[in-house]
Amino acid sequence: MVTCFGESHGSCVGVTIDGCPPGLELSEEVVQRELDRRRPTSQQVSTSRAESDTVQLLSGVFEGFTTGAPISMVVWNHDVDSSWYEEHRWTPRPGHADYPASVHYKGFNDHRGGGRFSGRLTAATVMAGAVARRYLSSKGVEVLAYTQEAAGVGIEKKLTLNEIREDRYANVMRCPDAAVAKRMEEAVIAARNEGDSVGGIVGCLVVGLPPGVGDPLFDALDADLAKMLLTIPAVKGVEFGAGFGAARLKGSENNDAYCIDKRKVVTKTNNAGGILGGLSTGMPITVRVAFKPTPSIGKRQETVDLKSMAETGIQIHGRHDACIVPRAVPVVEGAVALVLADHMLRCGY
Amino acid sequence: MVTCFGESHGSCVGVTIDGCPPGLELSEEVVQRELDRRRPTSQQVSTSRAESDTVQLLSGVFEGFTTGAPISMVVWNHDVDSSWYEEHRWTPRPGHADYPASVHYKGFNDHRGGGRFSGRLTAATVMAGAVARRYLSSKGVEVLAYTQEAAGVGIEKKLTLNEIREDRYANVMRCPDAAVAKRMEEAVIAARNEGDSVGGIVGCLVVGLPPGVGDPLFDALDADLAKMLLTIPAVKGVEFGAGFGAARLKGSENNDAYCIDKRKVVTKTNNAGGILGGLSTGMPITVRVAFKPTPSIGKRQETVDLKSMAETGIQIHGRHDACIVPRAVPVVEGAVALVLADHMLRCGY
Amino acid sequence: MVTCFGESHGSCVGVTIDGCPPGLELSEEVVQRELDRRRPTSQQVSTSRAESDTVQLLSGVFEGFTTGAPISMVVWNHDVDSSWYEEHRWTPRPGHADYPASVHYKGFNDHRGGGRFSGRLTAATVMAGAVARRYLSSKGVEVLAYTQEAAGVGIEKKLTLNEIREDRYANVMRCPDAAVAKRMEEAVIAARNEGDSVGGIVGCLVVGLPPGVGDPLFDALDADLAKMLLTIPAVKGVEFGAGFGAARLKGSENNDAYCIDKRKVVTKTNNAGGILGGLSTGMPITVRVAFKPTPSIGKRQETVDLKSMAETGIQIHGRHDACIVPRAVPVVEGAVALVLADHMLRCGY
Amino acid sequence: MVTCFGESHGSCVGVTIDGCPPGLELSEEVVQRELDRRRPTSQQVSTSRAESDTVQLLSGVFEGFTTGAPISMVVWNHDVDSSWYEEHRWTPRPGHADYPASVHYKGFNDHRGGGRFSGRLTAATVMAGAVARRYLSSKGVEVLAYTQEAAGVGIEKKLTLNEIREDRYANVMRCPDAAVAKRMEEAVIAARNEGDSVGGIVGCLVVGLPPGVGDPLFDALDADLAKMLLTIPAVKGVEFGAGFGAARLKGSENNDAYCIDKRKVVTKTNNAGGILGGLSTGMPITVRVAFKPTPSIGKRQETVDLKSMAETGIQIHGRHDACIVPRAVPVVEGAVALVLADHMLRCGY
Repeated sequence: MVTCFGESHGSCVGVTIDGCPPGLELSEEVVQRELDRRRPTSQQVSTSRAESDTVQLLSGVFEGFTTGAPISMVVWNHDVDSSWYEEHRWTPRPGHADYPASVHYKGFNDHRGGGRFSGRLTAATVMAGAVARRYLSSKGVEVLAYTQEAAGVGIEKKLTLNEIREDRYANVMRCPDAAVAKRMEEAVIAARNEGDSVGGIVGCLVVGLPPGVGDPLFDALDADLAKMLLTIPAVKGVEFGAGFGAARLKGSENNDAYCIDKRKVVTKTNNAGGILGGLSTGMPITVRVAFKPTPSIGKRQETVDLKSMAETGIQIHGRHDACIVPRAVPVVEGAVALVLADHMLRCGY
Repeated sequence: MVTCFGESHGSCVGVTIDGCPPGLELSEEVVQRELDRRRPTSQQVSTSRAESDTVQLLSGVFEGFTTGAPISMVVWNHDVDSSWYEEHRWTPRPGHADYPASVHYKGFNDHRGGGRFSGRLTAATVMAGAVARRYLSSKGVEVLAYTQEAAGVGIEKKLTLNEIREDRYANVMRCPDAAVAKRMEEAVIAARNEGDSVGGIVGCLVVGLPPGVGDPLFDALDADLAKMLLTIPAVKGVEFGAGFGAARLKGSENNDAYCIDKRKVVTKTNNAGGILGGLSTGMPITVRVAFKPTPSIGKRQETVDLKSMAETGIQIHGRHDACIVPRAVPVVEGAVALVLADHMLRCGY
Repeated sequence: MVTCFGESHGSCVGVTIDGCPPGLELSEEVVQRELDRRRPTSQQVSTSRAESDTVQLLSGVFEGFTTGAPISMVVWNHDVDSSWYEEHRWTPRPGHADYPASVHYKGFNDHRGGGRFSGRLTAATVMAGAVARRYLSSKGVEVLAYTQEAAGVGIEKKLTLNEIREDRYANVMRCPDAAVAKRMEEAVIAARNEGDSVGGIVGCLVVGLPPGVGDPLFDALDADLAKMLLTIPAVKGVEFGAGFGAARLKGSENNDAYCIDKRKVVTKTNNAGGILGGLSTGMPITVRVAFKPTPSIGKRQETVDLKSMAETGIQIHGRHDACIVPRAVPVVEGAVALVLADHMLRCGY
Repeated sequence: MVTCFGESHGSCVGVTIDGCPPGLELSEEVVQRELDRRRPTSQQVSTSRAESDTVQLLSGVFEGFTTGAPISMVVWNHDVDSSWYEEHRWTPRPGHADYPASVHYKGFNDHRGGGRFSGRLTAATVMAGAVARRYLSSKGVEVLAYTQEAAGVGIEKKLTLNEIREDRYANVMRCPDAAVAKRMEEAVIAARNEGDSVGGIVGCLVVGLPPGVGDPLFDALDADLAKMLLTIPAVKGVEFGAGFGAARLKGSENNDAYCIDKRKVVTKTNNAGGILGGLSTGMPITVRVAFKPTPSIGKRQETVDLKSMAETGIQIHGRHDACIVPRAVPVVEGAVALVLADHMLRCGY
């Protein structure tokens, strides 16, 4: 079970994991490595807010190993500037949660920097994911996410597992195809220069997961993955395997035929994306996650004043990512790892 | 909280809802109306398994009103023929959960008709959804699903709310555009005649939901909707509002500008699909759900014998839907209604 | 996870267990054996309501073994006579939940026979407990409850494990000391003849549980046992090991010294009742459960009319147990078994 | 939902509350007031470990009000001396959780000072309880605990509500009867001088709770209270109202007759302790909680060496409470408040 706390402009962002088995090697360094992958990748693609995001382990680790007790971790907020937000408290930013949040919390929510709705909260997912990844790696399971598409520029060639594994963090776009990454970056910078932003798609591949992991129906593995992925701000869609494309295939095209390979049951294709009936098939899990463009843009936008109920305009002066996709890559890895670790533990691994 | 039980070829399929408020008018007739919408729509599009699917209310209703106690309901299985399955117990059907289920349950699962993984279990979602819809309708919330695309044939014109509301159950395809429905049906029948099957896309529209319903992060409204929708067998993808298309828009295109309409805060566009930060915006919720083609097809397929670990073939002789999409429409409505009712109750409605 | 449904005068009482591992031998006979122990033990001690309480298994068992899917079971209500209750709907019976239930459910609750608050609902605990006991017995764990005290008459001599195991269901009082049982029975009958009722104490002993089962703090084994035991109607107190008596001991008297016996760590005494820090110690778990006298008595009692808010009297004419304690014995066994099975499964057994 | 983290000799003890409504006035001062009541009450009755226990609010409060987001709070550990524990890692202290914890966690648990099993973790319950008490007080509900008995010395006279409210924290024993408190203290000091410890009983009274709060069966109010109270280290028993004494009453004596007082339904007696069928009756809730004597004593005790599996002795040199009961009083208040707040929120208050 994972609980997160904290706000964008509060004192910290924290997360508590309950249920991690004892005896797993864990240290602040292991978590820090993942957190560092979530830092701004370049001044032009990402925000200029400068947070060191140094993790502090509060509990659950003793003599270098997990104890089985809850693991709580925080990163403290340092580079906070709330002045802009103080002025614009009652004029909701389009595309952000400001308006529904003020309704839901009756105006008591910490609105500064989006408060609890800020992308900064994904640090919690990355920290918790680092622990989950440690557990998964002890079981031979690897979770590999990368930018498949940004600003409409997408990978076209088929990448090898090794390319994804080795090159996904090699550039500012987190795209294992260097040439495509270059074109993506140019498109992002062009949008930024217009005071605009872009979206994209993160792909995630899981290898090494044994068959039979998951549960049917209300606890299905794909259902839990979809849920966790949709908790990441800016995600608007999720698809597994052939996904929306499967809706246009025939059964004879979409069904993955079984065969035997090295004494194991495998499928010749993997349109299922490694999941059938909420259970893993033993084939790689493949999932695609759609991110909308960053809602914070430089251009003036139409909004309303919630106090006077009059229409007005807003120009955002904060520090923002022109494309959130590259920084979302480790977040997707963390989210997927958390769900897989949870299901493997339930299945007795 | 909703718990379901039962198997395709066991004695029944049942569901228990805990947490329904007292004082809601409810009867077997109300539930039956929804269940009837899930029955086979035609001999050519759907299965020929003839189940009356008559609901029996076991608890939680007294003198025509919910009591606040758990509501348990069952439909009994009558038209069961397990002979084919007995013969093919150890040769998993491609595209079905047979293989991972036998691993997960160590061979003890009731495999007949797919057991707990059968589409028949969606009767539970429809029964529970009927109660949720009753609650929602008492709060002015309507959930309207319909077939948007089947066999690659999709609706192209913009439908009015009234067309969707009135015509979505008017034909065997559950498509409110009669002309498109006709072409869909022809495509389905053509596939069936080839011993094949097709998939499609169900759209769902929710109107009347007030703003601020939901929760951030791990309990986000869209996350819970995505999870529940992915518990429906054959679903491979879910998207909200502009969905995957948003990944190719710019922030200035995708952001929904706020304005005032009849003293209410609304947005000029609805690319968000009615949800921001896990909370409802007060605009209609729009979600699209991708269904793969029915995995049961008449054509011979490649599989393996799990006992001998040899490759073999399989020809399925059961009774199947050439296209599951029309029967999935009330299931999507039920699934969405359950999540919305749960979140509205949590928000104190 | 266990969910129960049904009411005293509705169609049935049912229970659904989710999370039972596959491969456990289970049949209606196994459950029936436990249910039969909950039937009225004699016309004078127990109620005259004649329910066969024949269990019907609805799901989760196939070819004589659990499948891993939810196990749902019901007993149907047959001998229902609600006439008395119709007349007394708005005059709450002292000692029953009638009054707070009508407030909680805004008057919509099924009041007949106490509805969901009836002792009849304990059939759910016994049915679910039967499954849990099956699992525990496959792990060498035995749960043995018995009447320790009724109507102030208590067991004084120290019973052997074998006496408890063999003789606890040997008489109408479910007391393994036959002489004491006789005196208990006389006291119960004397109370009944006065139109009154009596309470008592059920003791429960668990042997065979390995050390380390449970969890600290909010998931402590004793905390979960206490919770489950207090869900049994009429329970007013629970104590483990030396219990309330420990409050008057010194640390040097109450601490259980460790020693080695047959290469195992054991304690010389067992004041802890087999639980320390929410974890099992490997010593027998001992718990005592206090039952208040049956609130339904023949004597006229003072109450109020909730409609007119006037004081009035009530004379109960239903069929009741002069002492519920003997019939509570299998319920305590079931409740304890459910919690232990759950914790053993969580601990990977 | 409440999650706690931290260990006795780790960096901190923390707690996170999710689900607190927005708009409740809250500050570190409010929490600190409750925490201060848990500090050692005197050098002779309590431990000499000197922890300031200064609370730090990490999240969920903005401009002096709760925001509706998770509230996380910590107290940092300062006065930690683990040297004694390093030496005695494999010789479990009788009456402590050391032995079952080392089994449960496979030797990886942080054993220093009892780690997660330390009474120090009750700071989490007090911090969370402070928030719950704030909420309850806004609804007119008061939770009042006090020492009823210690070292066998108990209160005999009937205390007024005002005496309990005003005097329960007036002395080192947290007993509102000053004369009894004096005799308790003497008995505690006598035990300490012998290198021994004593136990006792905490009573708790709740006034102002409206009728109908709670739930039946598996979510009963008394069941949840019992569970939460048994999560407090050293608690061995819990009873409500007449409790174990009710087991010896007749129905006609134990039933609480209804009458009308100031247009409200009340009962003439309160043997039920304010709870029937898992729901509040509107009468005061009364619960008694039995604490065993502190297991840490100065006297030499018998134990075993878990490495060599040989019998040995142990003499504890840490800093301990000769009687934990006075410091448990605010913990009981916090535990009870948490459960009541949770149930009131569920009931829509």
